[in-house]
Amino acid sequence: MTVDFVGPRMPPNPRLFSFAGGVTGPWKSVRSRTLLGESLPAIKRLSIVSGTTVHVVNDAQWVLRGVTSNSRYTTRSEKQELQSKQAPLDRAEADCGVLIPIRKTSTWWDLTQDERRHIFEAQSHHTSVGLEYLPAIARRLHHCRDLSLEEPFDFLTWFEFDRSHTKAFEQLLIRLRNSPEWAYVDREVELWFDRESRVEMS
Amino acid sequence: MTVDFVGPRMPPNPRLFSFAGGVTGPWKSVRSRTLLGESLPAIKRLSIVSGTTVHVVNDAQWVLRGVTSNSRYTTRSEKQELQSKQAPLDRAEADCGVLIPIRKTSTWWDLTQDERRHIFEAQSHHTSVGLEYLPAIARRLHHCRDLSLEEPFDFLTWFEFDRSHTKAFEQLLIRLRNSPEWAYVDREVELWFDRESRVEMS
Repeated sequence: MTVDFVGPRMPPNPRLFSFAGGVTGPWKSVRSRTLLGESLPAIKRLSIVSGTTVHVVNDAQWVLRGVTSNSRYTTRSEKQELQSKQAPLDRAEADCGVLIPIRKTSTWWDLTQDERRHIFEAQSHHTSVGLEYLPAIARRLHHCRDLSLEEPFDFLTWFEFDRSHTKAFEQLLIRLRNSPEWAYVDREVELWFDRESRVEMS
Repeated sequence: MTVDFVGPRMPPNPRLFSFAGGVTGPWKSVRSRTLLGESLPAIKRLSIVSGTTVHVVNDAQWVLRGVTSNSRYTTRSEKQELQSKQAPLDRAEADCGVLIPIRKTSTWWDLTQDERRHIFEAQSHHTSVGLEYLPAIARRLHHCRDLSLEEPFDFLTWFEFDRSHTKAFEQLLIRLRNSPEWAYVDREVELWFDRESRVEMS
């Protein structure tokens, strides 16, 4: 257990989310695979908690943390299009959840803003490809790289959708993974979950 | 004392720096002023520590933390010019240290990348103005906003220079504070220090 002493009067960052994999939580693990780099230990259930609590850690195999943050690459016109089309998380019909943690290479992080934007959008069309799958696929991006403790991934993306959109979601992943941006990814895991309310009790 | 449980095997982020204000440390406080927003409690000495340790907190009035990170606005040509001109920290002749913590408004963080870049450089010439003061003024920028605990500032900038460059440094601050970018700053404190080796023992 790592304990990080930071002094008085510092509350958790309200944009911090913890993904705790273990034996409890509303999301039941249905399958997972490691695409690049080291795998994660197998889990049965996933909890998503705002902030980090002792409870989360107590029965967890692993805890991945990230913060939602300001956008890094989107322009105003892209942001407006995203906001007009995107759906929120926690829709009743969105019974599939997928967590995709990725890490990017040091080469990526040494690039300048203009170079990263060029690869991200001009070459890889990350935003414009993603837009094609809205509002079916809801998404929240979490940044891990600038947390105070060194995390095993740079980004955690959490997706929710109705299972009828599974094929479309898999197509989205293939398109992004075939893009030039993915040459800078050196660890990637894909974890699929069913929301508890739709799971048959055993 | 806030204790943040994050699970096993998570080392401190090697890019994390803690600025601990209190009664110990190699940097002796000579003056400070609050430009915008709430002030910081007065201190006698400053320590700058890589990572956060219990020791740092024990005798500290306050601890401000931030991580060095990838550049957010510089282009490749700007980065090359910065790298060719900038000086490192810890030069023997650099006996003045200045810590400037700032926070930006939610309006700033809601802007898109293209809008922030436009204000930062096209309107405010932040990088090109800063370049005029190299290599005299050495600088390290730390990001606080995406740490796991909510910090009181968004950025900590640490400057070191020979005292003969004090007037030039003050001119740099005036130019940046008069720029359109500073309309988005809502808390700013300026803390001046002398390096211990140059301080007369009392």
